[in-house]
Amino acid sequence: MINTSYKAMLGGKSVIRQLSEYATARKAQVGADHVYDFSLGNPSVPTAPEFTEAMLDLYAHDDPVALHGYSPSLGITQVREAVAASLNQRFGMNYTYEHIFMTSGAAGALSHALRAVTKPGDEVVTFAPYFPEYHPYVEGTGAILRVVEPGEHFQINFDALERTLNPNVTAVLINTPNNPSGVVYSDATLTKLAAILSAKQTEYGHDIFLISDEPYREIVFDGQNQPYPSKYYANTLSCYSFSKSLSLPGERIGYVAAHPQCTDALLIAPICGQISRGTGHNCPPSSIQLGVARVLDKTSDLRVYETNMNLLYDALTDIGFSVERPGGTFYIFPKALEADANAFCMKAKDYDLILVPSDSFGCPGYFRMAYCTTTELVERTIPVLRKFAHEQYGL
Amino acid sequence: MINTSYKAMLGGKSVIRQLSEYATARKAQVGADHVYDFSLGNPSVPTAPEFTEAMLDLYAHDDPVALHGYSPSLGITQVREAVAASLNQRFGMNYTYEHIFMTSGAAGALSHALRAVTKPGDEVVTFAPYFPEYHPYVEGTGAILRVVEPGEHFQINFDALERTLNPNVTAVLINTPNNPSGVVYSDATLTKLAAILSAKQTEYGHDIFLISDEPYREIVFDGQNQPYPSKYYANTLSCYSFSKSLSLPGERIGYVAAHPQCTDALLIAPICGQISRGTGHNCPPSSIQLGVARVLDKTSDLRVYETNMNLLYDALTDIGFSVERPGGTFYIFPKALEADANAFCMKAKDYDLILVPSDSFGCPGYFRMAYCTTTELVERTIPVLRKFAHEQYGL
Ligand SMILES: Cc1ncc(COP(=O)(O)O)c(C=O)c1O
Ligand SMILES: Cc1ncc(COP(=O)(O)O)c(C=O)c1O
Repeated sequence: MINTSYKAMLGGKSVIRQLSEYATARKAQVGADHVYDFSLGNPSVPTAPEFTEAMLDLYAHDDPVALHGYSPSLGITQVREAVAASLNQRFGMNYTYEHIFMTSGAAGALSHALRAVTKPGDEVVTFAPYFPEYHPYVEGTGAILRVVEPGEHFQINFDALERTLNPNVTAVLINTPNNPSGVVYSDATLTKLAAILSAKQTEYGHDIFLISDEPYREIVFDGQNQPYPSKYYANTLSCYSFSKSLSLPGERIGYVAAHPQCTDALLIAPICGQISRGTGHNCPPSSIQLGVARVLDKTSDLRVYETNMNLLYDALTDIGFSVERPGGTFYIFPKALEADANAFCMKAKDYDLILVPSDSFGCPGYFRMAYCTTTELVERTIPVLRKFAHEQYGL
Repeated sequence: MINTSYKAMLGGKSVIRQLSEYATARKAQVGADHVYDFSLGNPSVPTAPEFTEAMLDLYAHDDPVALHGYSPSLGITQVREAVAASLNQRFGMNYTYEHIFMTSGAAGALSHALRAVTKPGDEVVTFAPYFPEYHPYVEGTGAILRVVEPGEHFQINFDALERTLNPNVTAVLINTPNNPSGVVYSDATLTKLAAILSAKQTEYGHDIFLISDEPYREIVFDGQNQPYPSKYYANTLSCYSFSKSLSLPGERIGYVAAHPQCTDALLIAPICGQISRGTGHNCPPSSIQLGVARVLDKTSDLRVYETNMNLLYDALTDIGFSVERPGGTFYIFPKALEADANAFCMKAKDYDLILVPSDSFGCPGYFRMAYCTTTELVERTIPVLRKFAHEQYGL
């Protein structure tokens, strides 16, 4: 019989998807140029040419039987080695291939990491605003998602965190640079977080794993590097994706990197392998594993995101929006001009401005704009935003 | 904390993998030519050149942003349409894209199909001999796998099936052409199976879905087509993979095709989409979806499997083995020459013959040979098999 719990989930289409479908339909009606669509986090720049070259080379010259053969279930060993070497070089870590588990993007990485270190009934803590898909990732494991209210400048609210932590918490899930806020956790934030989690591990007498969701690791602004969370706390599982940095979201490729000093460090990847046997995921496509392994230190040309961010941030502040300046990603997260972000975004729709209300990010009263678009669209959008804010809210 | 149930599974390395690892080590010792390795079901022929051409064309000429963009979570619509059209043309079905859910190979297809139509505690019936990974696929959903003992010629044992069916059974899992037996279910078998399941649906007052595992659909011998199980029973979910027919096991691509007249036919694909949200699988790689969609009616050059089967079948019968003649796949499943198949295969190892004992297929006393190898290896193996059978068992 049809599984009724999954059937019941069918109503729950994501707000972002709904808006994006509306935008697509609307573009067909009035022309793509007249819809200011900031709904989707789909990279707008092509992948690095080196990736395309690597794939063309693999397809043209490699033995197809080897190229398309079954990958070991934890990932192709030389690919895992290349990932470890690249992380070691960049962040001064000491990963070996045994700490690396290849996944289907960050979604696969998070789902596996969460299952590896929680059991049904455990609590997983995350911080608002957060990526709405954390619900299926966490609840799919049988664990319960607890959300900590936002701190100042969207850093961590440590008082709220301490109130939320309890002995049932076995994992804490962070995302920096953050979708939707664009904020990068500071050195101070990560230092304090590590201290609290270490103390709580001792108090509770069990591990608390830090699951660090890092698909935007490479998209940071002002020439800064973001602090690497694994440097702060040994029980960290770093979850990476090539979706955004190499503009490969459809190819479903990423990894979990287990900190070499975390508890049972050498068991994390094999346990993830057992998990994927049961979910039928198995491993990411072999040719794509081999392709990304050749371009680990390359990215797409990401500069447009910073250009767009600066234009939008300046314009939004100038119009009178209250907004945190993003340190990375391709999102910005201003306060809505009325308490009800849904009502605000509905009004924006009349101007063909497609903005995502913040409620599903666990942080009411804001809206998200995904500026993985052309700069030209951002430039044409600014006067429309201005008109909307003026006509509807007198700014 | 590390999930102890997954940790406990770490010991349980598959017999096939262990043997294959032994074979690889042994080849390094004595030379690849001196090990007669029939352990792994890894296709030995290259993919169809048309697939490679399609991929080279996509990489060379398509807009990389579109090519590598997020696929809709049920699969790219035009790919689903192409799959439906190809099945309709071949089997006289009336699928639309809405019945097709793109997956990571047969593993992904089976795990999703099983989750879609069972709930934890339900029973899923399968038939010995069966693919050992059915355990994680079924048990990963929380359901219980019930195994029906083999019938004559490895067709279905209907008496045993009737004894096993009970109101907790909500799905029946078949695999034809079969791994490990190589046997193709006959028209009579599928007709009778459909009649029994229809009667039991009425008796129990609930659906019993037939999950049809079909990665070897294209590998059939003697110029025959195998009967298409969905033609026999409306509540069928056909689970396909391009791993074997197009020699793409590492690329992780396949689909579930829900029979257009099954219960809730239009909900199966969306429910599979909800399932994949929680497991982090999402969807198969976009470029590979587009690539296979261009070559749906092509296969690798599969003739070597039939050549190898005939050589092996004739030799094994001649030596004195009792063995069913395979109608498809690249497996053959003779009776071992002593009751304990493990002991038999251990002795074979002394001749550097790598044979897989049948216990993990739920059918003690047999062994599997995967002849997805060169014909030259098969030819060199036959005298070794003869020597082994003679020296150890006096044949
Ligand atoms: C914060 C965050 N985590 C995870 C994901 C999932 O990424 P992937 O496409 O690599 O699975 C996304 C995608 O938008 C994201 O924004
Ligand atoms: C009977 C059977 N089912 C399913 C699978 C899994 O296939 P895939 O690689 O497409 O996930 C296999 C692979 O050997 C198989 O033999």
